[in-house]
Amino acid sequence: MKALVLTKPGNLQIVEKEKPTPQQAEVLVKLKAAALNKRDQFIREGKYPNIQLDSILGSDGAGEVVEAGSSKEKKWVGKQVIINPNINWGDNDEVQSREYTILGMPTNGTFAEYVLVGADRLVEKPKHLSSEESAAFPLAGLTAYRACFHHGKISEGKNVLISGFGGGVAQFAFQFAKATGANVFVTSGSESKLEQALKMGASAAYNYKSKDWFKNSWQSKGGFDVVIDSAGGDQINDFIKVMKPSGRIVFYGATNGLPSSLDMYRMFWNQITLQGSTMGSDKEFIEMVKFVDKHKIKPIIGLVTPYENIVKALDEMAANRKTGKIVVKF
Amino acid sequence: MKALVLTKPGNLQIVEKEKPTPQQAEVLVKLKAAALNKRDQFIREGKYPNIQLDSILGSDGAGEVVEAGSSKEKKWVGKQVIINPNINWGDNDEVQSREYTILGMPTNGTFAEYVLVGADRLVEKPKHLSSEESAAFPLAGLTAYRACFHHGKISEGKNVLISGFGGGVAQFAFQFAKATGANVFVTSGSESKLEQALKMGASAAYNYKSKDWFKNSWQSKGGFDVVIDSAGGDQINDFIKVMKPSGRIVFYGATNGLPSSLDMYRMFWNQITLQGSTMGSDKEFIEMVKFVDKHKIKPIIGLVTPYENIVKALDEMAANRKTGKIVVKF
Repeated sequence: MKALVLTKPGNLQIVEKEKPTPQQAEVLVKLKAAALNKRDQFIREGKYPNIQLDSILGSDGAGEVVEAGSSKEKKWVGKQVIINPNINWGDNDEVQSREYTILGMPTNGTFAEYVLVGADRLVEKPKHLSSEESAAFPLAGLTAYRACFHHGKISEGKNVLISGFGGGVAQFAFQFAKATGANVFVTSGSESKLEQALKMGASAAYNYKSKDWFKNSWQSKGGFDVVIDSAGGDQINDFIKVMKPSGRIVFYGATNGLPSSLDMYRMFWNQITLQGSTMGSDKEFIEMVKFVDKHKIKPIIGLVTPYENIVKALDEMAANRKTGKIVVKF
Repeated sequence: MKALVLTKPGNLQIVEKEKPTPQQAEVLVKLKAAALNKRDQFIREGKYPNIQLDSILGSDGAGEVVEAGSSKEKKWVGKQVIINPNINWGDNDEVQSREYTILGMPTNGTFAEYVLVGADRLVEKPKHLSSEESAAFPLAGLTAYRACFHHGKISEGKNVLISGFGGGVAQFAFQFAKATGANVFVTSGSESKLEQALKMGASAAYNYKSKDWFKNSWQSKGGFDVVIDSAGGDQINDFIKVMKPSGRIVFYGATNGLPSSLDMYRMFWNQITLQGSTMGSDKEFIEMVKFVDKHKIKPIIGLVTPYENIVKALDEMAANRKTGKIVVKF
């Protein structure tokens, strides 16, 4: 089978690998689509911990179960599935175990014609989604779901600010928050992404490149109950200024680096929460797919391209020009 | 009646004031004891917002109800009470309202022979406490109670680190956490305070002046579930290092100022919470006194001195030499 591996640091290549055989409790999934994540690019660039060469990349995938490891998994054969990319989250909903990893390096991932996964990683594909659409959800959707609900406690009527609307997680967070009936606001540095957010029902959209964007947001809307962020940096202190008392700032990344201070005075007086978040539990993965099914949510897809173009597609993602997930099709 | 007021910035003086008369829903309390808080000293030093001259200072008090504003409050007359220092917390347990203030500037406080308060501010003094002991609880006890339980979610078996064991809130937090069956650890810069904490049942005590104190704490104890802090500063990043995954750092002050960075990477990967906290709701005040009664908790008292010495007593508190609350007696 064809498989995308890191042959040496920085160098990705589609190579021939042997098709794996499922053991007990495992199934073999023939992939129909796989989606790209920043994680894949971080591994390519050597910015991820414990990189192992020659493992197959890819965390997101949807396809058909074609082989079962034992009679117990037989019921899955022929089913259209989405794959939960968690490996060893563990029993505690609050936090992943120390053995936790994500599908796609070191465990062989979804950027291949076939992938071997535990049968307990499978969720049936919702009917309203194509395989390409399904493949867009796992990693980014799970991260967004946990940030929004487990940590953000977003519910109807809350004022929610999603920063950096361009990113995959940010867009799912936007859609999930909208689906609960929250008033959703966005920031972006791109006017076209701000326009897109407004078309999708954003209550307001702010360009964070304009100085004092946060002053307007504060004055016009009375403050935010929740901010969902992955940029970090000094902007964190702007968020603290525009929170309602007892507001929650949830972040799942810090792509702009660390802040040069933290306004703890305002944080304690207004009882603000600053909450780190990452991925989500197995239980949340199942809940997320149910939520997507219930609200008939479709992902924003920026590009669908044949699997053979995957290295170019990763370049495209790294260039950060597209709104929406990038998906490869087998 | 005698009353302590700020006659001009920096200058406290005991003056003669007219004894107030309660109106409907109010009672007059003849104070038996009042306790000192950093807040009083901050007001004296001009470090508190919206300072008004000539208001009577003092947030903590215990005494006897001697006069009722109407027949409805009559049942309180003759009762020994502790005064809830919250004014206008509001209906939301999550956070104080915008009208929230604390007894003692601008509203006349407890550093006087009599104080006028709403009858709904009264809680009966637990029998195991003297008036001097009761007076030590309100402001610091309420702050500690909220930090420990509402925000810290401390329960039996948790590893809890109380930083800066010298302070009043820190000591109540220590006692409350111990009473729930948590494993309680402390830091202090003073060896005598560390010894006192060990005598009171601390699982371990660390001198934060010794470089790498946090490395020892991490290695020996597997990390903390909760940190209760009021110092802030760069130490926040040491705490982030010694938290268990999904641990909670709760702070109700930042006396060392703001940190020069924040380790957001470790925070999101380990799903750490950084939580600002201040005072507590009216409901929590009642719960706190019940908790103190149930567990027969006695405050650590550093000094009891006659009311006439109150300015000297504030000097003593500001010098930070004493462990325990400083109480004046009428």
